[in-house]
Amino acid sequence: MPPARDAIVDAAQAEFLRLGYDGASIRAIARAAGVDPALVHHYFDNKADLFGEAIASPIRPDRIVAEVLKGPRADIGTGIVRILVTRLDDERAQATVLGLLRTALGHEFAARMLRQFLVREVLHRIADELGLDDGELRASFAGSQLVGLVVARYGIRIGPLAEASNEEVIARVGAVVQWHLLGDLSSGPGG
Amino acid sequence: MPPARDAIVDAAQAEFLRLGYDGASIRAIARAAGVDPALVHHYFDNKADLFGEAIASPIRPDRIVAEVLKGPRADIGTGIVRILVTRLDDERAQATVLGLLRTALGHEFAARMLRQFLVREVLHRIADELGLDDGELRASFAGSQLVGLVVARYGIRIGPLAEASNEEVIARVGAVVQWHLLGDLSSGPGG
Repeated sequence: MPPARDAIVDAAQAEFLRLGYDGASIRAIARAAGVDPALVHHYFDNKADLFGEAIASPIRPDRIVAEVLKGPRADIGTGIVRILVTRLDDERAQATVLGLLRTALGHEFAARMLRQFLVREVLHRIADELGLDDGELRASFAGSQLVGLVVARYGIRIGPLAEASNEEVIARVGAVVQWHLLGDLSSGPGG
Repeated sequence: MPPARDAIVDAAQAEFLRLGYDGASIRAIARAAGVDPALVHHYFDNKADLFGEAIASPIRPDRIVAEVLKGPRADIGTGIVRILVTRLDDERAQATVLGLLRTALGHEFAARMLRQFLVREVLHRIADELGLDDGELRASFAGSQLVGLVVARYGIRIGPLAEASNEEVIARVGAVVQWHLLGDLSSGPGG
């Protein structure tokens, strides 16, 4: 990595820790790194990219959602789960994601950063795209199923769930994510 | 607490750590505590009780499931979620449960204990009761939604999900748990 890029990432880590996701700005990060904001934009498309790099996340929920939202609406749930479990076939990716979750569970400032990132870059985007009044709430329920899948399958590794094939997981969890996002809540799943 | 009961809990903690949930026995715990196994049974109904005490868990999935399985089958999902979120109205209970999850994500021996406990005392029981071929797999998917609810609502506290009422959570997550356990998988939720 070029030294300027290193300096930007270091400054971003410090600013996100100090101010949270919403409070940190590209401009302030550039100032802290001693570079022009244009150079930050040269290396990173946006604040979400810089955040993903700062926390070294191998999973980018904002990008997964952006990609899946381009496809057919009926495939959003399975599409998200397919990308997630395929990425998590990599054991290093598993360890990193589980480490991030553990940190968020142990430190309020980490939870706040993650929370702000998810609301700003993931929930807002899904809600806008789906055009539903309760889009952010629906997206957060869907997110709860996805976080639980990661914790139970790759973290605690509950027997049958850890041994299930990716296809089995994509079918069942994908159907639930789809229902949380777009299902008829009056009848319930399967209703 | 009487000194003998203290000694039993101390010995149980050591034995569970050393041997895991499946490997530890009431007999060996009694021996380590220097008491008769009958005294262990005097204080604790079974190994699950002793484990719940050893890890100081305010939530007992085995008891929640046993209680809900006594009621109508159609209410299992909402019943489980109702008990869970009602318990977690208590902030100390939240902190303890999140601490246990964090520990399980950071230490393989803790993950193994929790995994063995859940398979033995929760998944087996649900599978037996429901009489389905894939009952344990279904129960572990349901468990993933529940774990995710705990992490996302009480740990990361994702905005809309943290602010939702218990009734809203019970309706949506209950429907998903019900579907994971007993739904028609060929059509998917809402199908």
